[in-house]
Amino acid sequence: MALDDRWFTEINADNGAAFSLQIKEKLHEEQTPYQRISIYETTHFGTLMTIDDLYMVSDRENFLYHEMMSHPALFTHDDPKDVLIIGGGDCGTLREVLRHPGVRRAQQVEIDARVTRLAEKYFPELCASNNDPRAELHFVDGIKWVKDAQPESYDLIVIDSTDPVGPAEGLFTEAFHRDCLRILRPGGIFIQQSESPLYHMKLIASLYGALRRAGYSDVQSLQFPQAIYPSGWWSATMAGKGRDLTKFRETAVRNKVFDTVYYNAEIHRAALAMPEFFRKQVKG
Amino acid sequence: MALDDRWFTEINADNGAAFSLQIKEKLHEEQTPYQRISIYETTHFGTLMTIDDLYMVSDRENFLYHEMMSHPALFTHDDPKDVLIIGGGDCGTLREVLRHPGVRRAQQVEIDARVTRLAEKYFPELCASNNDPRAELHFVDGIKWVKDAQPESYDLIVIDSTDPVGPAEGLFTEAFHRDCLRILRPGGIFIQQSESPLYHMKLIASLYGALRRAGYSDVQSLQFPQAIYPSGWWSATMAGKGRDLTKFRETAVRNKVFDTVYYNAEIHRAALAMPEFFRKQVKG
Repeated sequence: MALDDRWFTEINADNGAAFSLQIKEKLHEEQTPYQRISIYETTHFGTLMTIDDLYMVSDRENFLYHEMMSHPALFTHDDPKDVLIIGGGDCGTLREVLRHPGVRRAQQVEIDARVTRLAEKYFPELCASNNDPRAELHFVDGIKWVKDAQPESYDLIVIDSTDPVGPAEGLFTEAFHRDCLRILRPGGIFIQQSESPLYHMKLIASLYGALRRAGYSDVQSLQFPQAIYPSGWWSATMAGKGRDLTKFRETAVRNKVFDTVYYNAEIHRAALAMPEFFRKQVKG
Repeated sequence: MALDDRWFTEINADNGAAFSLQIKEKLHEEQTPYQRISIYETTHFGTLMTIDDLYMVSDRENFLYHEMMSHPALFTHDDPKDVLIIGGGDCGTLREVLRHPGVRRAQQVEIDARVTRLAEKYFPELCASNNDPRAELHFVDGIKWVKDAQPESYDLIVIDSTDPVGPAEGLFTEAFHRDCLRILRPGGIFIQQSESPLYHMKLIASLYGALRRAGYSDVQSLQFPQAIYPSGWWSATMAGKGRDLTKFRETAVRNKVFDTVYYNAEIHRAALAMPEFFRKQVKG
Protein backbone atom coordinates (compact mmCIF):
# COMPACT_ATOMS: atom_id res chain seq x y z
CA MET A 1 0.00 0.00 0.00
CA ALA A 2 1.57 3.31 -0.99
CA LEU A 3 1.60 6.41 1.17
CA ASP A 4 1.04 9.63 -0.69
CA ASP A 5 2.50 13.02 0.15
CA ARG A 6 0.08 13.54 3.02
CA TRP A 7 2.39 11.37 5.12
CA PHE A 8 5.71 12.06 6.77
CA THR A 9 7.91 8.94 6.78
CA GLU A 10 11.11 8.25 8.68
CA ILE A 11 13.01 5.37 7.12
CA ASN A 12 15.34 3.37 9.33
CA ALA A 13 17.48 1.92 6.56
CA ASP A 14 19.65 -0.17 8.89
CA ASN A 15 16.57 -2.13 9.92
CA GLY A 16 14.52 -2.03 6.73
CA ALA A 17 11.67 -0.39 8.64
CA ALA A 18 9.77 2.88 8.42
CA PHE A 19 7.21 4.72 10.53
CA SER A 20 4.82 7.28 9.05
CA LEU A 21 2.42 9.84 10.43
CA GLN A 22 -0.38 11.39 8.44
CA ILE A 23 0.09 15.12 7.99
CA LYS A 24 -2.50 17.87 7.76
CA GLU A 25 -0.01 20.61 7.02
CA LYS A 26 3.66 21.49 7.17
CA LEU A 27 3.74 24.48 9.49
CA HIS A 28 7.38 25.45 9.24
CA GLU A 29 10.77 24.37 7.96
CA GLU A 30 14.22 25.91 8.31
CA GLN A 31 17.86 25.03 7.98
CA THR A 32 19.88 26.17 10.99
CA PRO A 33 23.69 26.08 11.20
CA TYR A 34 23.30 22.62 12.77
CA GLN A 35 20.34 20.86 11.21
CA ARG A 36 17.02 21.13 9.37
CA ILE A 37 14.03 21.54 11.64
CA SER A 38 10.49 20.86 10.39
CA ILE A 39 7.17 21.34 12.15
CA TYR A 40 4.03 19.52 11.03
CA GLU A 41 0.44 19.39 12.09
CA THR A 42 -0.49 15.71 12.06
CA THR A 43 -3.97 14.22 11.90
CA HIS A 44 -3.75 12.20 15.15
CA PHE A 45 -0.48 12.99 16.93
CA GLY A 46 -0.92 16.76 17.29
CA THR A 47 2.08 18.91 16.44
CA LEU A 48 5.25 17.12 15.35
CA MET A 49 8.86 18.30 15.21
CA THR A 50 11.43 16.50 13.08
CA ILE A 51 15.15 17.22 12.78
CA ASP A 52 16.88 16.16 9.56
CA ASP A 53 13.74 14.13 8.82
CA LEU A 54 13.95 12.17 12.07
CA TYR A 55 11.14 12.19 14.63
CA MET A 56 11.89 14.38 17.64
CA VAL A 57 8.72 15.14 19.53
CA SER A 58 4.95 14.94 19.09
CA ASP A 59 2.14 16.26 21.27
CA ARG A 60 0.53 12.87 21.65
CA GLU A 61 3.26 10.74 23.16
CA ASN A 62 6.13 12.94 24.31
CA PHE A 63 4.95 12.34 27.90
CA LEU A 64 6.59 8.92 27.79
CA TYR A 65 10.05 10.16 26.90
CA HIS A 66 10.05 13.29 29.03
CA GLU A 67 8.74 11.60 32.15
CA MET A 68 11.20 8.72 31.82
CA MET A 69 14.20 10.96 31.14
CA SER A 70 13.56 12.87 34.37
CA HIS A 71 11.54 11.31 37.20
CA PRO A 72 13.29 7.93 37.61
CA ALA A 73 16.71 9.56 37.97
CA LEU A 74 15.39 12.38 40.19
CA PHE A 75 13.68 9.91 42.53
CA THR A 76 16.75 7.66 42.58
CA HIS A 77 18.84 10.55 43.90
CA ASP A 78 18.33 11.39 47.62
CA ASP A 79 18.07 15.12 47.17
CA PRO A 80 18.85 16.45 43.69
CA LYS A 81 19.41 20.21 43.74
CA ASP A 82 21.49 21.11 40.68
CA VAL A 83 20.51 19.61 37.34
CA LEU A 84 22.22 19.94 33.97
CA ILE A 85 20.36 19.04 30.77
CA ILE A 86 22.48 18.69 27.62
CA GLY A 87 20.32 19.02 24.51
CA GLY A 88 16.65 18.90 25.40
CA GLY A 89 15.88 21.96 23.28
CA ASP A 90 12.15 21.28 23.20
CA CYS A 91 12.17 22.02 26.96
CA GLY A 92 9.96 19.06 27.87
CA THR A 93 12.61 17.47 30.09
CA LEU A 94 13.27 20.84 31.75
CA ARG A 95 9.58 21.14 32.58
CA GLU A 96 9.49 17.68 34.19
CA VAL A 97 12.70 18.34 36.16
CA LEU A 98 11.26 21.57 37.57
CA ARG A 99 8.18 19.76 38.86
CA HIS A 100 10.48 18.59 41.68
CA PRO A 101 10.30 21.28 44.38
CA GLY A 102 13.74 20.32 45.76
CA VAL A 103 15.52 21.24 42.51
CA ARG A 104 17.05 24.70 42.97
CA ARG A 105 18.61 25.14 39.53
CA ALA A 106 18.13 23.44 36.15
CA GLN A 107 20.42 24.47 33.33
CA GLN A 108 19.51 23.47 29.79
CA VAL A 109 22.46 23.58 27.42
CA GLU A 110 21.20 23.20 23.85
CA ILE A 111 23.53 23.84 20.92
CA ASP A 112 20.77 25.08 18.59
CA ALA A 113 18.66 27.98 19.91
CA ARG A 114 16.23 27.52 17.00
CA VAL A 115 15.00 24.23 18.47
CA THR A 116 13.91 26.08 21.60
CA ARG A 117 12.52 29.12 19.75
CA LEU A 118 10.36 26.81 17.62
CA ALA A 119 9.30 24.77 20.66
CA GLU A 120 8.21 27.99 22.37
CA LYS A 121 6.03 28.75 19.37
CA TYR A 122 4.72 25.28 18.45
CA PHE A 123 4.94 23.33 21.73
CA PRO A 124 4.08 26.02 24.31
CA GLU A 125 3.01 23.46 26.92
CA LEU A 126 6.49 21.87 26.87
CA CYS A 127 7.98 25.31 27.52
CA ALA A 128 5.65 26.10 30.43
CA SER A 129 8.56 26.23 32.88
CA ASN A 130 11.02 28.23 30.78
CA ASN A 131 10.36 31.31 32.90
CA ASP A 132 10.69 29.47 36.19
CA PRO A 133 13.34 31.41 38.19
CA ARG A 134 15.22 28.12 38.67
CA ALA A 135 15.55 27.57 34.89
CA GLU A 136 18.58 28.69 32.89
CA LEU A 137 18.62 28.35 29.10
CA HIS A 138 22.06 28.37 27.47
CA PHE A 139 22.64 27.96 23.75
CA VAL A 140 26.19 26.70 23.50
CA ASP A 141 28.04 23.45 22.89
CA GLY A 142 27.24 20.97 25.65
CA ILE A 143 30.57 19.16 25.35
CA LYS A 144 32.47 22.40 25.98
CA TRP A 145 30.07 23.34 28.80
CA VAL A 146 30.84 20.08 30.59
CA LYS A 147 34.60 20.48 30.05
CA ASP A 148 34.52 24.01 31.56
CA ALA A 149 32.19 23.27 34.49
CA GLN A 150 33.40 23.23 38.10
CA PRO A 151 34.12 19.78 39.56
CA GLU A 152 31.36 18.26 41.68
CA SER A 153 28.83 20.95 40.81
CA TYR A 154 25.81 18.86 39.68
CA ASP A 155 23.60 16.18 41.21
CA LEU A 156 22.08 15.05 37.93
CA ILE A 157 23.14 15.30 34.29
CA VAL A 158 20.54 14.45 31.62
CA ILE A 159 21.73 13.85 28.06
CA ASP A 160 18.60 14.52 26.04
CA SER A 161 20.11 14.41 22.57
CA THR A 162 19.42 13.34 19.02
CA ASP A 163 20.86 10.07 17.69
CA PRO A 164 24.63 9.50 17.99
CA VAL A 165 25.39 10.95 14.57
CA GLY A 166 26.01 14.60 13.66
CA PRO A 167 25.99 17.13 16.52
CA ALA A 168 25.25 14.45 19.15
CA GLU A 169 28.08 12.05 18.23
CA GLY A 170 30.49 13.43 20.83
CA LEU A 171 27.95 12.79 23.60
CA PHE A 172 28.37 9.03 23.22
CA THR A 173 32.11 8.84 23.97
CA GLU A 174 34.04 7.68 27.01
CA ALA A 175 35.84 11.06 27.11
CA PHE A 176 32.53 12.90 27.47
CA HIS A 177 31.29 10.43 30.08
CA ARG A 178 34.50 10.99 32.06
CA ASP A 179 34.00 14.77 31.91
CA CYS A 180 30.45 14.36 33.19
CA LEU A 181 31.64 12.14 36.04
CA ARG A 182 34.09 14.86 37.08
CA ILE A 183 31.38 17.52 37.43
CA LEU A 184 28.94 15.23 39.27
CA ARG A 185 28.87 15.38 43.06
CA PRO A 186 29.39 12.10 44.92
CA GLY A 187 26.13 10.18 44.69
CA GLY A 188 25.29 12.01 41.47
CA ILE A 189 23.52 10.45 38.51
CA PHE A 190 24.11 10.63 34.77
CA ILE A 191 21.32 9.61 32.37
CA GLN A 192 21.45 9.44 28.58
CA GLN A 193 18.85 8.53 25.97
CA SER A 194 20.19 5.28 24.55
CA GLU A 195 18.14 4.23 21.53
CA SER A 196 16.18 1.02 20.87
CA PRO A 197 16.86 -2.32 22.60
CA LEU A 198 15.56 -4.07 19.47
CA TYR A 199 17.59 -2.12 16.90
CA HIS A 200 20.61 -0.73 18.75
CA MET A 201 21.74 -3.38 21.23
CA LYS A 202 25.35 -3.05 20.05
CA LEU A 203 25.31 0.68 20.78
CA ILE A 204 23.77 0.08 24.21
CA ALA A 205 26.35 -2.57 25.10
CA SER A 206 29.13 -0.24 24.00
CA LEU A 207 27.59 2.59 26.05
CA TYR A 208 27.71 0.32 29.14
CA GLY A 209 31.40 -0.33 28.39
CA ALA A 210 32.19 3.38 27.97
CA LEU A 211 30.39 4.32 31.18
CA ARG A 212 32.10 1.58 33.19
CA ARG A 213 35.53 2.47 31.84
CA ALA A 214 34.83 6.14 32.58
CA GLY A 215 34.54 5.17 36.24
CA TYR A 216 30.82 5.09 37.11
CA SER A 217 30.01 2.67 39.90
CA ASP A 218 26.71 1.38 38.52
CA VAL A 219 25.06 1.39 35.08
CA GLN A 220 21.39 0.64 34.66
CA SER A 221 18.98 1.16 31.75
CA LEU A 222 15.33 2.13 31.77
CA GLN A 223 13.04 0.81 29.03
CA PHE A 224 9.79 2.31 27.84
CA PRO A 225 7.53 2.50 24.77
CA GLN A 226 7.88 5.42 22.35
CA ALA A 227 5.74 5.02 19.26
CA ILE A 228 7.47 7.58 17.01
CA TYR A 229 11.04 6.39 17.65
CA PRO A 230 12.52 3.47 15.71
CA SER A 231 10.90 0.13 16.75
CA GLY A 232 8.57 1.91 19.21
CA TRP A 233 10.72 0.61 22.07
CA TRP A 234 13.19 2.99 23.65
CA SER A 235 15.75 3.17 26.44
CA ALA A 236 17.63 5.60 28.65
CA THR A 237 20.75 4.55 30.52
CA MET A 238 21.66 5.79 33.99
CA ALA A 239 25.13 5.72 35.51
CA GLY A 240 25.86 6.44 39.16
CA LYS A 241 28.79 8.13 40.89
CA GLY A 242 28.86 5.85 43.90
CA ARG A 243 25.13 5.26 43.92
CA ASP A 244 23.03 2.10 43.66
CA LEU A 245 20.59 2.79 40.83
CA THR A 246 18.21 -0.06 41.61
CA LYS A 247 16.78 1.70 44.69
CA PHE A 248 14.65 4.82 44.66
CA ARG A 249 12.56 7.01 46.98
CA GLU A 250 9.40 5.00 46.59
CA THR A 251 7.43 6.82 49.29
CA ALA A 252 8.32 10.15 47.71
CA VAL A 253 7.03 8.86 44.35
CA ARG A 254 3.76 7.80 45.95
CA ASN A 255 3.41 11.22 47.61
CA LYS A 256 4.65 13.31 44.70
CA VAL A 257 3.06 16.75 44.42
CA PHE A 258 2.60 16.64 40.63
CA ASP A 259 0.67 14.50 38.16
CA THR A 260 2.20 12.22 35.58
CA VAL A 261 0.62 10.43 32.64
CA TYR A 262 2.92 7.38 32.50
CA TYR A 263 5.33 7.39 35.45
CA ASN A 264 4.59 5.96 38.89
CA ALA A 265 6.45 3.76 41.38
CA GLU A 266 5.44 0.50 39.67
CA ILE A 267 6.47 1.84 36.25
CA HIS A 268 9.80 2.99 37.71
CA ARG A 269 10.57 -0.50 38.97
CA ALA A 270 9.24 -2.06 35.75
CA ALA A 271 11.44 0.14 33.55
CA LEU A 272 14.52 -1.22 35.34
CA ALA A 273 13.75 -4.83 34.35
CA MET A 274 16.08 -6.26 31.74
CA PRO A 275 14.91 -8.73 29.08
CA GLU A 276 17.03 -11.91 28.88
CA PHE A 277 18.83 -10.92 25.68
CA PHE A 278 19.53 -7.46 27.09
CA ARG A 279 20.92 -8.78 30.38
CA LYS A 280 23.25 -11.13 28.54
CA GLN A 281 24.61 -8.29 26.41
CA VAL A 282 25.31 -5.81 29.19
CA LYS A 283 26.33 -7.92 32.17
CA GLY A 284 29.58 -6.57 33.60
CA MET B 1 9.85 10.57 1.78
CA ALA B 2 7.94 8.10 -0.35
CA LEU B 3 8.16 4.35 -0.04
CA ASP B 4 8.21 2.46 -3.29
CA ASP B 5 6.76 -0.98 -3.94
CA ARG B 6 9.66 -2.70 -2.21
CA TRP B 7 7.89 -1.94 1.09
CA PHE B 8 4.91 -3.50 2.80
CA THR B 9 2.92 -0.89 4.72
CA GLU B 10 0.16 -1.36 7.27
CA ILE B 11 -1.86 1.82 7.69
CA ASN B 12 -3.62 2.38 10.98
CA ALA B 13 -6.17 4.87 9.72
CA ASP B 14 -7.78 5.48 13.12
CA ASN B 15 -4.47 6.83 14.38
CA GLY B 16 -3.04 8.40 11.22
CA ALA B 17 0.01 6.17 11.53
CA ALA B 18 1.69 3.51 9.39
CA PHE B 19 4.49 1.02 9.82
CA SER B 20 6.44 -0.39 6.88
CA LEU B 21 8.94 -3.18 6.37
CA GLN B 22 11.24 -3.43 3.40
CA ILE B 23 10.52 -6.49 1.29
CA LYS B 24 12.88 -8.65 -0.73
CA GLU B 25 10.16 -10.80 -2.22
CA LYS B 26 6.53 -11.81 -1.84
CA LEU B 27 6.74 -15.57 -1.28
CA HIS B 28 3.06 -16.46 -1.29
CA GLU B 29 -0.45 -15.05 -1.24
CA GLU B 30 -3.83 -16.73 -1.03
CA GLN B 31 -7.43 -15.98 -0.20
CA THR B 32 -8.91 -18.53 2.21
CA PRO B 33 -12.62 -18.74 3.14
CA TYR B 34 -11.76 -16.47 6.08
CA GLN B 35 -9.04 -14.03 5.03
CA ARG B 36 -6.17 -13.21 2.72
CA ILE B 37 -2.82 -14.54 3.89
CA SER B 38 0.45 -13.18 2.50
CA ILE B 39 4.02 -14.29 3.14
CA TYR B 40 6.99 -12.00 2.48
CA GLU B 41 10.71 -12.23 2.79
CA THR B 42 11.79 -8.94 4.36
CA THR B 43 15.27 -7.40 4.30
CA HIS B 44 15.73 -7.23 8.09
CA PHE B 45 12.82 -8.95 9.85
CA GLY B 46 13.14 -12.38 8.25
CA THR B 47 9.93 -13.98 7.04
CA LEU B 48 6.71 -12.06 7.58
CA MET B 49 3.08 -13.20 7.56
CA THR B 50 0.26 -10.71 7.09
CA ILE B 51 -3.49 -11.37 7.19
CA ASP B 52 -5.72 -8.97 5.29
CA ASP B 53 -2.68 -6.68 5.03
CA LEU B 54 -2.19 -6.55 8.81
CA TYR B 55 1.03 -7.68 10.45
CA MET B 56 0.75 -11.09 12.10
CA VAL B 57 4.18 -12.51 12.76
CA SER B 58 7.80 -11.94 11.77
CA ASP B 59 10.89 -14.03 12.47
CA ARG B 60 12.72 -11.17 14.14
CA GLU B 61 10.44 -10.18 16.95
CA ASN B 62 7.71 -12.80 17.42
CA PHE B 63 9.57 -13.97 20.56
CA LEU B 64 8.11 -11.00 22.42
CA TYR B 65 4.48 -11.81 21.71
CA HIS B 66 4.72 -15.59 22.00
CA GLU B 67 6.67 -15.55 25.26
CA MET B 68 4.36 -12.99 26.83
CA MET B 69 1.15 -14.77 25.73
CA SER B 70 2.30 -17.97 27.44
CA HIS B 71 4.89 -17.88 30.23
CA PRO B 72 3.42 -15.21 32.56
CA ALA B 73 0.04 -16.99 32.70
CA LEU B 74 1.61 -20.46 32.99
CA PHE B 75 3.86 -19.34 35.86
CA THR B 76 0.95 -17.56 37.56
CA HIS B 77 -0.99 -20.82 37.69
CA ASP B 78 0.13 -23.34 40.37
CA ASP B 79 0.13 -26.36 38.12
CA PRO B 80 -1.34 -25.86 34.63
CA LYS B 81 -2.07 -29.20 32.97
CA ASP B 82 -4.72 -28.59 30.30
CA VAL B 83 -4.30 -25.62 27.99
CA LEU B 84 -6.62 -24.35 25.28
CA ILE B 85 -5.35 -21.92 22.63
CA ILE B 86 -7.98 -20.19 20.52
CA GLY B 87 -6.47 -18.87 17.28
CA GLY B 88 -2.69 -19.00 17.42
CA GLY B 89 -2.50 -20.63 13.98
CA ASP B 90 1.20 -19.81 13.55
CA CYS B 91 1.81 -22.29 16.40
CA GLY B 92 4.32 -20.03 18.21
CA THR B 93 2.19 -19.86 21.36
CA LEU B 94 1.70 -23.63 21.28
CA ARG B 95 5.46 -24.13 21.15
CA GLU B 96 6.02 -21.88 24.19
CA VAL B 97 3.20 -23.56 26.14
CA LEU B 98 4.72 -26.99 25.51
CA ARG B 99 8.08 -25.89 26.93
CA HIS B 100 6.41 -26.36 30.33
CA PRO B 101 6.94 -30.01 31.30
CA GLY B 102 3.87 -30.00 33.57
CA VAL B 103 1.47 -29.31 30.68
CA ARG B 104 -0.12 -32.62 29.68
CA ARG B 105 -2.31 -31.42 26.81
CA ALA B 106 -2.37 -28.27 24.67
CA GLN B 107 -5.20 -27.90 22.19
CA GLN B 108 -4.92 -25.28 19.49
CA VAL B 109 -8.25 -24.36 17.96
CA GLU B 110 -7.67 -22.23 14.86
CA ILE B 111 -10.52 -21.49 12.48
CA ASP B 112 -8.31 -21.31 9.37
CA ALA B 113 -6.15 -24.37 8.71
CA ARG B 114 -4.29 -22.47 5.99
CA VAL B 115 -2.64 -20.24 8.61
CA THR B 116 -1.08 -23.32 10.18
CA ARG B 117 -0.21 -25.00 6.88
CA LEU B 118 1.62 -21.85 5.76
CA ALA B 119 3.33 -21.50 9.15
CA GLU B 120 4.56 -25.09 8.84
CA LYS B 121 6.11 -24.19 5.50
CA TYR B 122 7.39 -20.67 6.15
CA PHE B 123 7.89 -20.56 9.95
CA PRO B 124 9.06 -24.11 10.69
CA GLU B 125 10.75 -23.10 13.96
CA LEU B 126 7.39 -21.84 15.34
CA CYS B 127 5.88 -25.24 14.49
CA ALA B 128 8.67 -27.21 16.17
CA SER B 129 6.26 -28.67 18.75
CA ASN B 130 3.36 -29.51 16.44
CA ASN B 131 4.26 -33.19 16.64
CA ASP B 132 4.64 -33.20 20.40
CA PRO B 133 2.30 -35.97 21.66
CA ARG B 134 0.72 -33.43 24.02
CA ALA B 135 -0.28 -31.13 21.11
CA GLU B 136 -3.69 -31.28 19.41
CA LEU B 137 -4.41 -29.15 16.36
CA HIS B 138 -8.09 -28.55 15.60
CA PHE B 139 -9.33 -26.41 12.74
CA VAL B 140 -12.81 -25.36 13.80
CA ASP B 141 -14.57 -22.30 15.20
CA GLY B 142 -13.15 -21.46 18.63
CA ILE B 143 -16.38 -19.87 19.84
CA LYS B 144 -18.30 -23.08 19.18
CA TRP B 145 -15.47 -25.17 20.68
CA VAL B 146 -15.72 -23.25 23.93
CA LYS B 147 -19.53 -23.50 23.97
CA ASP B 148 -19.36 -27.28 23.53
CA ALA B 149 -16.49 -27.96 25.95
CA GLN B 150 -16.98 -29.72 29.30
CA PRO B 151 -17.24 -27.48 32.35
CA GLU B 152 -14.06 -27.06 34.38
CA SER B 153 -11.88 -28.87 31.86
CA TYR B 154 -9.03 -26.36 31.34
CA ASP B 155 -6.45 -24.65 33.54
CA LEU B 156 -5.49 -22.00 31.01
CA ILE B 157 -7.23 -20.50 27.97
CA VAL B 158 -5.13 -18.33 25.63
CA ILE B 159 -6.94 -16.15 23.09
CA ASP B 160 -4.27 -15.59 20.45
CA SER B 161 -6.41 -13.88 17.83
CA THR B 162 -6.34 -11.19 15.19
CA ASP B 163 -7.83 -7.76 15.91
CA PRO B 164 -11.44 -7.60 17.13
CA VAL B 165 -12.90 -7.22 13.65
CA GLY B 166 -13.88 -9.99 11.22
CA PRO B 167 -13.44 -13.58 12.45
CA ALA B 168 -12.09 -12.50 15.85
CA GLU B 169 -14.91 -10.09 16.75
CA GLY B 170 -16.87 -12.66 18.77
CA LEU B 171 -13.84 -13.34 20.97
CA PHE B 172 -14.13 -9.89 22.54
CA THR B 173 -17.63 -10.27 23.97
CA GLU B 174 -18.91 -10.82 27.49
CA ALA B 175 -20.83 -13.92 26.27
CA PHE B 176 -17.61 -15.54 25.06
CA HIS B 177 -15.80 -14.59 28.27
CA ARG B 178 -18.58 -16.19 30.28
CA ASP B 179 -18.32 -19.41 28.22
CA CYS B 180 -14.57 -19.48 28.85
CA LEU B 181 -15.10 -19.00 32.59
CA ARG B 182 -17.44 -22.00 32.63
CA ILE B 183 -14.85 -24.36 31.11
CA LEU B 184 -12.00 -23.15 33.35
CA ARG B 185 -11.25 -25.10 36.51
CA PRO B 186 -11.24 -23.18 39.79
CA GLY B 187 -7.96 -21.23 39.91
CA GLY B 188 -7.84 -21.23 36.11
CA ILE B 189 -6.58 -18.33 33.99
CA PHE B 190 -7.86 -16.70 30.83
CA ILE B 191 -5.52 -14.52 28.75
CA GLN B 192 -6.37 -12.53 25.63
CA GLN B 193 -4.24 -10.36 23.35
CA SER B 194 -5.65 -6.89 23.98
CA GLU B 195 -4.17 -4.40 21.50
CA SER B 196 -2.21 -1.20 22.15
CA PRO B 197 -2.40 0.85 25.36
CA LEU B 198 -1.61 3.95 23.30
CA TYR B 199 -4.18 3.40 20.54
CA HIS B 200 -6.88 1.14 22.01
CA MET B 201 -7.38 2.20 25.62
CA LYS B 202 -11.14 2.32 25.13
CA LEU B 203 -11.18 -1.29 23.93
CA ILE B 204 -8.98 -2.36 26.87
CA ALA B 205 -11.21 -0.60 29.39
CA SER B 206 -14.27 -2.22 27.84
CA LEU B 207 -12.53 -5.63 27.94
CA TYR B 208 -11.96 -5.14 31.69
CA GLY B 209 -15.66 -4.38 32.07
CA ALA B 210 -16.71 -7.45 30.07
CA LEU B 211 -14.39 -9.78 32.02
CA ARG B 212 -15.56 -8.42 35.38
CA ARG B 213 -19.22 -8.72 34.43
CA ALA B 214 -18.58 -12.24 33.15
CA GLY B 215 -17.56 -13.15 36.70
CA TYR B 216 -13.75 -13.33 36.77
CA SER B 217 -12.31 -12.53 40.18
CA ASP B 218 -9.26 -10.59 39.02
CA VAL B 219 -8.30 -8.84 35.78
CA GLN B 220 -4.72 -7.80 35.08
CA SER B 221 -2.93 -6.74 31.90
CA LEU B 222 0.61 -7.42 30.76
CA GLN B 223 2.40 -4.84 28.63
CA PHE B 224 5.32 -5.41 26.27
CA PRO B 225 6.93 -3.97 23.14
CA GLN B 226 6.00 -5.36 19.72
CA ALA B 227 7.55 -3.41 16.87
CA ILE B 228 5.31 -4.64 14.04
CA TYR B 229 1.98 -4.08 15.82
CA PRO B 230 0.32 -0.65 15.86
CA SER B 231 2.24 1.83 18.05
CA GLY B 232 4.91 -0.79 18.85
CA TRP B 233 3.39 -1.15 22.34
CA TRP B 234 1.15 -4.14 22.99
CA SER B 235 -0.84 -5.75 25.78
CA ALA B 236 -2.40 -9.03 26.83
CA THR B 237 -5.06 -9.18 29.52
CA MET B 238 -5.36 -11.99 32.06
CA ALA B 239 -8.49 -12.83 34.04
CA GLY B 240 -8.56 -15.26 36.94
CA LYS B 241 -11.19 -17.72 38.14
CA GLY B 242 -10.59 -17.20 41.85
CA ARG B 243 -6.89 -16.52 41.46
CA ASP B 244 -4.73 -13.52 42.38
CA LEU B 245 -2.90 -12.63 39.16
CA THR B 246 -0.27 -10.40 40.75
CA LYS B 247 1.61 -13.36 42.26
CA PHE B 248 3.53 -15.99 40.34
CA ARG B 249 5.89 -18.93 40.88
CA GLU B 250 9.03 -16.82 40.91
CA THR B 251 11.38 -19.62 41.99
CA ALA B 252 10.06 -21.80 39.19
CA VAL B 253 10.75 -19.00 36.70
CA ARG B 254 14.32 -18.66 37.96
CA ASN B 255 14.80 -22.45 37.66
CA LYS B 256 12.93 -22.93 34.38
CA VAL B 257 14.28 -25.71 32.19
CA PHE B 258 14.03 -23.77 28.92
CA ASP B 259 15.58 -20.61 27.48
CA THR B 260 13.71 -17.44 26.66
CA VAL B 261 14.81 -14.38 24.73
CA TYR B 262 12.66 -11.75 26.52
CA TYR B 263 10.84 -13.30 29.48
CA ASN B 264 12.28 -13.71 32.97
CA ALA B 265 11.03 -13.07 36.51
CA GLU B 266 11.86 -9.34 36.44
CA ILE B 267 10.15 -8.91 33.06
CA HIS B 268 7.08 -10.78 34.37
CA ARG B 269 6.74 -8.38 37.29
CA ALA B 270 7.52 -5.40 35.05
CA ALA B 271 4.86 -6.36 32.51
CA LEU B 272 2.22 -6.19 35.27
CA ALA B 273 2.97 -2.52 36.04
CA MET B 274 0.26 -0.12 34.94
CA PRO B 275 1.03 3.38 33.65
CA GLU B 276 -0.91 6.16 35.41
CA PHE B 277 -3.33 6.77 32.52
CA PHE B 278 -3.93 3.02 32.19
CA ARG B 279 -4.60 2.51 35.90
CA LYS B 280 -7.12 5.37 35.91
CA GLN B 281 -9.00 3.84 32.96
CA VAL B 282 -9.28 0.29 34.28
CA LYS B 283 -9.63 0.66 38.04
CA GLY B 284 -12.58 -1.36 39.27
